[in-house]
Formats: sequence, structure tokens, C-alpha cells
Amino acid sequence: MDERSALATLAATLPAAGDDAAVVDGLAVTTDMLHERSDFPTGTTRRTAGWRAVGASLSDLAAMGAEATCAVAVYAAPEFDEAELSAFVGGAVEVCELVGAEYVGGDLDEHTEFTTATTAVGRVDEAIYRDGATPGETVCVTGELGRTAAGLRRFATGDAESGNDLFQFTPRVAAGRALRGHASAMMDSSDGLARSLHQLAEASGCGFSIEWDRLPVHPAVDAVAEDETDRRECAAHVGEDFELVFTTPDPEAAIAAVEATGTAATAIGDVTGAGVTAGGEALPDRGYTHGDN
Amino acid sequence: MDERSALATLAATLPAAGDDAAVVDGLAVTTDMLHERSDFPTGTTRRTAGWRAVGASLSDLAAMGAEATCAVAVYAAPEFDEAELSAFVGGAVEVCELVGAEYVGGDLDEHTEFTTATTAVGRVDEAIYRDGATPGETVCVTGELGRTAAGLRRFATGDAESGNDLFQFTPRVAAGRALRGHASAMMDSSDGLARSLHQLAEASGCGFSIEWDRLPVHPAVDAVAEDETDRRECAAHVGEDFELVFTTPDPEAAIAAVEATGTAATAIGDVTGAGVTAGGEALPDRGYTHGDN
Repeated sequence: MDERSALATLAATLPAAGDDAAVVDGLAVTTDMLHERSDFPTGTTRRTAGWRAVGASLSDLAAMGAEATCAVAVYAAPEFDEAELSAFVGGAVEVCELVGAEYVGGDLDEHTEFTTATTAVGRVDEAIYRDGATPGETVCVTGELGRTAAGLRRFATGDAESGNDLFQFTPRVAAGRALRGHASAMMDSSDGLARSLHQLAEASGCGFSIEWDRLPVHPAVDAVAEDETDRRECAAHVGEDFELVFTTPDPEAAIAAVEATGTAATAIGDVTGAGVTAGGEALPDRGYTHGDN
Repeated sequence: MDERSALATLAATLPAAGDDAAVVDGLAVTTDMLHERSDFPTGTTRRTAGWRAVGASLSDLAAMGAEATCAVAVYAAPEFDEAELSAFVGGAVEVCELVGAEYVGGDLDEHTEFTTATTAVGRVDEAIYRDGATPGETVCVTGELGRTAAGLRRFATGDAESGNDLFQFTPRVAAGRALRGHASAMMDSSDGLARSLHQLAEASGCGFSIEWDRLPVHPAVDAVAEDETDRRECAAHVGEDFELVFTTPDPEAAIAAVEATGTAATAIGDVTGAGVTAGGEALPDRGYTHGDN
């Protein structure tokens, strides 16, 4: 059974699972595990790792329209170097502070590979799920796409400083909160825009038609992309940008609500009856495999 | 830096860390990572693993006097066998149901070693910390000690059925709730009674004097212990029994409150000014190293 089938099995067994975060008794809860080999390219600092691992969980709260109350992490490594551990915690604290959450520690574990398991918890009154999109609505994204793709290229060429900068993102908690009452369906783009659209389509029983020239591509992509095909790969398939992908019946109001939080939002296409297309052609349900995982 | 020093560093950096669970904004949150090699003896079923991993986090909530709202887990394994995954989830669901919590899924991850990272979240109005013990009070434990030690012996001799039975414990959430207003300090016995007493002593700035013949030893220990020395080792040092160790100025009332929840509680000694002794001799701050971790 592959990971996606296994996740589907879990979602069928556990009613609260299967969205970006589980919602139970007024709380949103989400957990993730990241590894050195698959998630942290050579040159990633422990500060970036802490930021990014905790940020990924905070992004899942954002995708539900939840507040971010707190986060914890398990830090598992072959040894506990005080500077590395402090840097990890520093990154975790900083990303939490950006979204009004408190980083409250966690657990340490001896492990052959640097691995971290993060959990974020937030209160949620009116959760936004993946299954509410309706044909005729508009699909939008927050921020810009391709930031992580650009970061990966920077790490690959040895420019770790730029890579680390690009890897430290702001979870869209404020935007997610602002979208309550505006977004009909939402998730984050952690698996890439293409996969996110396919997952929203499957959950909502709809399709999407997006236009390539409407995608807000991060300026760092232009500096690394070989050509337009590569640029699209960076924006739509590489993923882990942790932007919000959402549908709305009133894009003008929704975009204004997001912009009021200081984050951009862009309409990229329409909700259709079935199929996911970009520029009129099928957009494959394909992400990017990071490292060997 | 060893794990204990690193944990101390973390606790100094993060005000909410350093107890069984972090308390923030009316919520108690705790996370743990367990490994096949170090935490699950050969013969441990995935159902027991799910039960025990999630139960360990629920026990941390119990130790704060918190309710148990929900739990999540990352299930990391070399492959996702549907029967194994379902068994893990089944164990997790069952232990949650025992304490009124909901198991809401989590994340899957490919990993060379079966590893699980669990997080439990609960509401807490009046948290019980480790630092409130005062000389002259009484120290008590819930349930019986040595259950895990007996289980380990059963696994070691190939009696996996008994081992699995002994490894499936009830987190003391109800007892922990009942101790609000009674317990002055509390933690769980996951590192063993001896280490728990040393940790409570350090946090509270006190000592403990306990009596060996007052320890409530699990009957399964008598079937496996070689002699009285070994019996004490099982009861005080092996740990991972997930009972509550607490101090109280009024042991009669505290024990009655716990017993009203259907769990036994026993006074095992006194809170003193300094030093941790058992039967008048120093009780070493020593646990048991499981497996190779």
C-alpha cells in the first residue's frame, strides 16, 4: 500500500482525519514528520529546519481558518549539539511569533538521522474544509508560488544563504482567518499547486480550469528557471510553498479580505464540473519527490 | 550534550516546557517519539504499539490534571502494511476511548525503522505542576508499579501474548482530574519511580523518604522477579508504568478522590527537606535503558 492509499484508508477510518488538520471539539490539530535526507537539502541550517518544520504545521492550521495557539516538536538527532538545538528552537520560536502562536518545546530523541515531528494546535470556530467548492466559483492562491523550488535550486548550486532565506516562509494564518465567510474550500499548497487542485477537486467533487499567465510566480523563480516549462514546473509542481489555495463565490471580497492582512491573493481560474486543466490542457496530478523519500 | 542536559537547556529557554506537558492558553500539549528498537520489544503488536505510544502522551496530560481531548500520531515505517496500520490505529483509538479522548489521525512517513511520534492535547483549568511539593506532605502513587518490567520479561522469554497484555495500560486521566485540589505536585512514572521522585525533588526543592514495603507492586512482577532486589528493580527503576506520582497534604482525601474514579492509590512515604531515600538508604537516580537507545 503506498502512502496515498494508506492516507485514504486512515481518512475513511477516522472521520476527523483527511483534511489539512483534524478538527475536534473546537480545536484544530495537525502533525507532520520531516527528515534530513528528504526535506532539508544540504546547507539547510537548523534554524531554518525548526522554522520550516513548525511552519509546515502552522500552515495546516491556516488552511482550516484556525487560530494558531501553540506548537511542539520532537527533535531527533544522532547527538544533541547545544548550538544546533538552540538554533532549531530559535527558528521554531520565530515562526510561531509571526503567527501569534507560542512554541512550547517538545521532546528529544536519539536517532540516526536528523528527524523532526511537529504538531500545531489552534482554536477554530468555523473551519474551512476541502469539500466545499462549487462549479462557477473562482479559485485563488495567496502569496507567490515557486519560492521553495527556487530555494531548492539555490541549495543545489551551493548558495545556502539564499536557500535558507527562501525556505523561511510566513504561514498564512492571518489570511486563513480572514477567509472565514469568504472561502468555500481551502487547503495549503504543501504538495504543490497541481496536487492541491486535484485534492480539492476530489474532496469537493468538482474540477478546476486555471490559466498559466495568472499564476503569481515568485520573483526568485525567474532567476533560476531555464525556460517557461521549467518555470511552470517550479510554480505548479515542486510544492512546499505553504500558500493557501482556496475557492470563493466572491473573489473580489475574498482577495480584499486577504490583502487586509498584508498578504497578496490572486484569482488563478475557475471551479468547473470535472477535470483539472491549466491553459486548456490537463494538469497532471504530479508533485516533486524531494531527495530519496 | 546528553539528552537530560539538552532537555534542561530547552526548559530554561521555553517557559512552558519542562513539565509532563506544556500548558498554554488553557490547553495542555505533549509530544513523544518512540522507536521499534528501543521501545517496542520483539513480539509487540502494532495494536499495542499504537495503544502504548498514544497512551504515553495521554499519561502526560493526566500528570497535569488535564482533560484529554484528542491525540494524533505520525506512523513512520519502511512500508505501509494495511493490517499493521489498521492495528496501530485500532490500539490508538481504543486507548483514547478509555480516557474520553478522540484519536484524530495524523501523518504517515516512510522511515527505515518503525517510529511513531504522538501528540495529545487536552483542556486544563487548574494544572498540577512538578514544583509544588512541601516537606511534611505525603507522596503517593496510583495503581501498581512494575507492570512494564513484567511485560518486558514476558517478551524476553517469548511470551508475547502476556507481554502485549501488560503493555496495554490505562492512562490515569480520570485520577489526574480527581487530584485537582488534592495534589500539590505530580508527574507520571514513565522514567520509573526513582527518577520521578528525583525529578519532583529537583523541581520542588525537597526530598523524599519512601518505604519499600509500602510500594504497590503489580502481581505480574512476583511471577517474574528472581528475588527481593530484583523485585525492587522492577518496581522502582524499570519505569514506563505510566502511573501518577503525586504529593499531597491530605493523603486520605486524595486517595479517596482517586479511588472514586476506580483506580487504586497508595501512600508510599513522606516529602522531606532533601535527599531521596527508600528504606532509609539513598535511592539512586537511575532508570532502565530499553534496548539500544
